[in-house]
Amino acid sequence: MSTPDIEAFLRAMREVLPDDAVCADATARDRYARTTQPAGTRPAAVLFPATTEEVAAIVRLANDHRVALYPISRGRNLGYGDACAPTEGAVILDLGRMNRILELDTRLGYVVIEPGVTQQQLFDHLRRHAPDYWMDATGAGPDASIVGNALERGFGHTPYGDHVRTTCGIEVVLPNGRAVLTGFGHHANARTVHVYPYGVGPAVDGLFMQSNLGIVTKLGLWLQPAPRAFTFFYVKVDRDAALEPVIDRLRALRMDGVLNSAVHVGNDLRIVSSQQQYPWEAADGRTPLPDPVRAALRARWGVGAWNVSGSLTGTRDQVRGARRMLKRAMRGLGRVVFVDDARLALGNWVAGALGRFGLGARLRRQLEALRPNYGLLKGIPTDFPLQALAWRLRKAPAQWDDPLAAACGLLWISPVVPATGEDARAVLDIVAPRFHEAGFDLLATFTFINERAMIGIFNISFDKTLSEECAAAARCYHAVMDALLDAGYPPYRVAVHGMARLWRDDDTFQDLLRDLKRALDPAGILAPGRYIPEESGAPIRHSRESGNPETQE
Amino acid sequence: MSTPDIEAFLRAMREVLPDDAVCADATARDRYARTTQPAGTRPAAVLFPATTEEVAAIVRLANDHRVALYPISRGRNLGYGDACAPTEGAVILDLGRMNRILELDTRLGYVVIEPGVTQQQLFDHLRRHAPDYWMDATGAGPDASIVGNALERGFGHTPYGDHVRTTCGIEVVLPNGRAVLTGFGHHANARTVHVYPYGVGPAVDGLFMQSNLGIVTKLGLWLQPAPRAFTFFYVKVDRDAALEPVIDRLRALRMDGVLNSAVHVGNDLRIVSSQQQYPWEAADGRTPLPDPVRAALRARWGVGAWNVSGSLTGTRDQVRGARRMLKRAMRGLGRVVFVDDARLALGNWVAGALGRFGLGARLRRQLEALRPNYGLLKGIPTDFPLQALAWRLRKAPAQWDDPLAAACGLLWISPVVPATGEDARAVLDIVAPRFHEAGFDLLATFTFINERAMIGIFNISFDKTLSEECAAAARCYHAVMDALLDAGYPPYRVAVHGMARLWRDDDTFQDLLRDLKRALDPAGILAPGRYIPEESGAPIRHSRESGNPETQE
Repeated sequence: MSTPDIEAFLRAMREVLPDDAVCADATARDRYARTTQPAGTRPAAVLFPATTEEVAAIVRLANDHRVALYPISRGRNLGYGDACAPTEGAVILDLGRMNRILELDTRLGYVVIEPGVTQQQLFDHLRRHAPDYWMDATGAGPDASIVGNALERGFGHTPYGDHVRTTCGIEVVLPNGRAVLTGFGHHANARTVHVYPYGVGPAVDGLFMQSNLGIVTKLGLWLQPAPRAFTFFYVKVDRDAALEPVIDRLRALRMDGVLNSAVHVGNDLRIVSSQQQYPWEAADGRTPLPDPVRAALRARWGVGAWNVSGSLTGTRDQVRGARRMLKRAMRGLGRVVFVDDARLALGNWVAGALGRFGLGARLRRQLEALRPNYGLLKGIPTDFPLQALAWRLRKAPAQWDDPLAAACGLLWISPVVPATGEDARAVLDIVAPRFHEAGFDLLATFTFINERAMIGIFNISFDKTLSEECAAAARCYHAVMDALLDAGYPPYRVAVHGMARLWRDDDTFQDLLRDLKRALDPAGILAPGRYIPEESGAPIRHSRESGNPETQE
Repeated sequence: MSTPDIEAFLRAMREVLPDDAVCADATARDRYARTTQPAGTRPAAVLFPATTEEVAAIVRLANDHRVALYPISRGRNLGYGDACAPTEGAVILDLGRMNRILELDTRLGYVVIEPGVTQQQLFDHLRRHAPDYWMDATGAGPDASIVGNALERGFGHTPYGDHVRTTCGIEVVLPNGRAVLTGFGHHANARTVHVYPYGVGPAVDGLFMQSNLGIVTKLGLWLQPAPRAFTFFYVKVDRDAALEPVIDRLRALRMDGVLNSAVHVGNDLRIVSSQQQYPWEAADGRTPLPDPVRAALRARWGVGAWNVSGSLTGTRDQVRGARRMLKRAMRGLGRVVFVDDARLALGNWVAGALGRFGLGARLRRQLEALRPNYGLLKGIPTDFPLQALAWRLRKAPAQWDDPLAAACGLLWISPVVPATGEDARAVLDIVAPRFHEAGFDLLATFTFINERAMIGIFNISFDKTLSEECAAAARCYHAVMDALLDAGYPPYRVAVHGMARLWRDDDTFQDLLRDLKRALDPAGILAPGRYIPEESGAPIRHSRESGNPETQE
């Protein structure tokens, strides 16, 4: 790309956008550079379009001026780069002002929303206007964008947790500045745009997820009718070696349809980290945590080596039958505890309601530790999981609502893993030693994303105020990612600074993506380097020895 | 496209393919031109590649010689054009020799198959090697290709009926002759190619369905574990006016997950047509059928104005609960009859087994008429539905195994319809008068393809030996399709001769498809005119008055 003239572009922008929609001051640019990653990228400016037409106008002018745009929905790509572009000096398109809920169909169960709509906003809207429907919430927090997360293939916890499958009909501004509606959307008056996803002819929606081929400005999303019955379940698995049969038996139940929502299998430290920080005093700063300290933490919070949680939903008959089958499947591996609304009003959870049902103090603490999941399994957004980000801070942050204001360092590593005990163990055997070697404890979860696959989530939590810990986190991230790729477990999603590690020379699929990028965005103005290799004079070369990740892009 | 030199191309072909894989004799070309459509197209030659490498070699040479290729899997695109290309004189790539079942994973429940694999072949293979799994069968018959049908988004009848959602990881030969694997397929050693469909980065699979952007040479397909319990259900709905509440209540059950497989709602004549031909004598040749004749047919076969059939699958508890809820939902609309394997061995159906359970002769006939559905709901391929093709023949064909050998005329019209009674009625009000005006009775089904949408299937059955009936069928097809498009009900799939009717001037989406086509297939050699508008000197113009469909392409 020839040197872009940002100033001329911004002058042109000020002619088509309101004054307050163009922002290039240093404070704002710094704010958008904040990230939980070891290092962020600083944008050249931030634009705030309010309509699809404004987005289109921006894109057209960016082509004229050959300026790189980076669209964000609400910039909460937490643990994967937040609002940061892969490259320095991009112009951020913050779509936060496009926050309308355009349509709610209570008969067919869907909404059409803009990218600025937050999880909390949709949740409140449904509670008021469609109380018979659930939304599916991800763990990204109440302020996160639903559209932005869905486009990254983030996942939630109810039976509607795979948002790729519940997205139906999107509007996209192409890099040429023209807007398209997918599926049946381009057929005049079509009544089926948001009830049947494929339309007739090729389906292009997949091109606009995890990509840089267009800016999604509207999205149709299916809503789940509130199930007639709901039960939360928890299984404490004491023996680490029981992981394999636990996963294999859960897979069988998932394939049979007995389990139909996300099922989490988290290790002890993952659960503990949502309750307290790393025990600096007890562990004397050592990592991995000495075994006795770790055992004491398990005892304190009443958690097992592995902890299974999820929900059973459906009709009363279905849930009753599923309880029976789950109990039978877990026999010999762990005791299954069921909690439902009838026995326990969510609000009373902390207030000791459990005691009334004869549950002991230890079980109460177990459930307390699992509380965030209970709400998520009903599609209720929560910022509780964000508290786990402080795990490695030397002192607890003063405020929780903005993890970027604290010094929380966070890198997610999230490989897709076949839903077998054998594969789960193989992945742990790759990840754990590399975490330990770099001075981090392993916080691990496996979540069933469908009947056959799980997403493993391993978070490197670190203290951003310590430069040596930042460097260790970055080294650990790349060492683990490379090892997982070599072993055949690529990630479902990557951080902006990690995308180039996915690319290989002489890859037909990657060449196809480049052909598509060249066809749709010949000037390469849209989110360069995002998931699709950048064009350049020289072919892109990837070398694992090519230096530290901060400067890789 | 400049005038292709077919002869030179075929000479080149004979150097890279075995002798018996290149065929240009007149008999074969005539055979591939046969169709149930009013008119077919005749290919210039037929090639029979046996490997992905051969397909790639053919594609590269087709580019050199600028020859139009038209790939078919087994050529059973019944009712939509059979083996015919949209254009005259294409070179057919018959992939029937690529018929290997490459992989069967009984732990994770999937197969990887080539395009030549037939429904019967996979069914037999599973019965032998994986009896705990079901395949999902479509109504296209035992000899139809699974891959070809899935790429056309054909649908089956079990909970795995939407094959777009059960396809995971495909191999595609691009128009440039290079092969790509989608999803995680291009990552070396990836263990998750066939268990997680999206990979990381953009997902391109949708580009290769209902399109002409690549030739699919392998496909991963998920298998359903045989459910612990299965019950077939049938509801006879006597009053035509009950259609609306029937659909609305079925939708509620589908959204709740009580119903999880395809549910058919077929009219009287659709059911009758699978049992007998048009009653030429009784009706004295009149169409639409006089009311008394139609009433007599309903009485004879014991069918209602509308007939609902489907299955309940899952665990025993789930099926028991679902029976109760279905009965309650249908109260006042029709009586629900349940039939399961325990009560009725499928093989004894015809042999009078029903009598043993006290079912009356009329009920027995009802169920007899619905028999083909019973097998399909268990994923058993059948050619029974093909018998309905003879509805309008003046005499029954001598042999059933090849509908193309008889004079069966068939055009499917298959709009997507929101799953509401109101929309179903609106569609019938559009379709029925136009069928009647053209001299055809309306054979109609609505099938729930997901929780929110149905596919309406309306077949124009006609006698190909009568040229005036062929012309009437073609006129009727286009009149109905145009009216459905105007009213906002585009089809899920179209016949090869009907594709150009979908295209409109000044359509951004269509321009996007053309950009993609130009990028991937600059010479336009692959299946020109198939779902994506052809490039040409002049922009494509569509006029509804532009003449009869036979000569439109």
